[in-house]
Amino acid sequence: MSSTILFSGVVPLRLRSVLTPANPATDRASMASSSGAKWAQKTITLPPLRRGCHLITPKILKEIREDLSDFNCGLAHVFLQHTSASLTINENYDPDVQADTETFLNRIVPEGNSAPWRHTMEGPDDMPAHIKSSMFGCQLTIPITKGKLSMGTWQGIWLCEHRDAPTARRVVVTLNGI
Amino acid sequence: MSSTILFSGVVPLRLRSVLTPANPATDRASMASSSGAKWAQKTITLPPLRRGCHLITPKILKEIREDLSDFNCGLAHVFLQHTSASLTINENYDPDVQADTETFLNRIVPEGNSAPWRHTMEGPDDMPAHIKSSMFGCQLTIPITKGKLSMGTWQGIWLCEHRDAPTARRVVVTLNGI
Amino acid sequence: MSSTILFSGVVPLRLRSVLTPANPATDRASMASSSGAKWAQKTITLPPLRRGCHLITPKILKEIREDLSDFNCGLAHVFLQHTSASLTINENYDPDVQADTETFLNRIVPEGNSAPWRHTMEGPDDMPAHIKSSMFGCQLTIPITKGKLSMGTWQGIWLCEHRDAPTARRVVVTLNGI
Repeated sequence: MSSTILFSGVVPLRLRSVLTPANPATDRASMASSSGAKWAQKTITLPPLRRGCHLITPKILKEIREDLSDFNCGLAHVFLQHTSASLTINENYDPDVQADTETFLNRIVPEGNSAPWRHTMEGPDDMPAHIKSSMFGCQLTIPITKGKLSMGTWQGIWLCEHRDAPTARRVVVTLNGI
Repeated sequence: MSSTILFSGVVPLRLRSVLTPANPATDRASMASSSGAKWAQKTITLPPLRRGCHLITPKILKEIREDLSDFNCGLAHVFLQHTSASLTINENYDPDVQADTETFLNRIVPEGNSAPWRHTMEGPDDMPAHIKSSMFGCQLTIPITKGKLSMGTWQGIWLCEHRDAPTARRVVVTLNGI
Repeated sequence: MSSTILFSGVVPLRLRSVLTPANPATDRASMASSSGAKWAQKTITLPPLRRGCHLITPKILKEIREDLSDFNCGLAHVFLQHTSASLTINENYDPDVQADTETFLNRIVPEGNSAPWRHTMEGPDDMPAHIKSSMFGCQLTIPITKGKLSMGTWQGIWLCEHRDAPTARRVVVTLNGI
């Protein structure tokens, strides 16, 4: 992989196109030089979404696509500033996958009278929401390749809302690369 | 978001203050120039903590606050070098949330005679600790904005100790930014 | 920690050797200078692995070791481009830990006739695989210290295959540092 090192100057980068099978023809790309690391950061406020799992890739890309195009190679970090919702990467095609994942979360984390929780100040969905948030996490880091997120064909970014009462959710997106 | 790109020179950064509502007055900040990426890395040894979930934000900030103040924009990476404890971000105010999360983990991962584990060399809490470690993970990446961690108002860093016998835990913190 | 800041020039770095106990003799190291951030990115195709958890640290290191040696300080990001498998860091010694973790995942995510899933187009293991993928996640970020991954003595990188029919899996590795 030594040929893949990106110094600050112009160097070849061994990369496979994310959406096309690797082959000798697509396996090399020449990268523009960089005068150092580029950084971009933006706080995105997502409108309230009902309890459940939601595909938000389009919402995120709408906000960062223009900046993303300036990065030949790098990382995109997406951070949710809340403890009762979560971010995860999962299937981007069939909405049933989102519905089934919500079903799973509700089966595994007890809610209501049968639940053993002490922390109920904001209602029966309060503590389960905190637990689900730690199960899936509140942060994603995604590679950037040639101005695009290097996700697999079927991958999408999900916001999972774990509270019954929808609220706006803030996401900090940080881009870093060359 | 093109106006948010941080080149190596002085450029405006569209940013919302994490703790104050966004408004035109706070929505722009001028960034100092950078001669390239800055990196800092430190290994922190946390004293033994009893089995359960513990808020460690103050312990981490005490070790990195001085360096953190040198970064206008970047990412802080926190990595736990162990497989029987975990790191997660969750509620920073009510200790009941930590107690309830420990209750959940113990309900979901069977321990003792009823458990199906083969790996019991270090006792009944050994294999459950490994599983809990993968459920929550051992790594966090948090945005840095104007010298501070860009966490939400209610977010804190938790170390979850999954073993009965407390031991010191090592955390590698890596800061990168401009 | 101010003495740990790595500017672009030569500076001392307070670092503890990952595999040896910290002591005054090993606690300081002089870093080579850098003309800015270095980046490397590579897509690795892993051969099909049977359903279960697999230690892949050697496979990953074989592909990146040479590049890794060029980084004194940085981060290695490992991203799985699939939604029916996952990446996690866990115990690298006893294969029973991998077997027990697979047992846990199969107990916690119902499969077959008793399962409530709507999304069954690819068989009974389809939806459970998606859920397990979000439970463990598809991404890892690991510190780089003196040309090596700064993992703990017992930590290893696992690929968890959640489908019955093994397929090749693509992993994008991105290295960034100085």
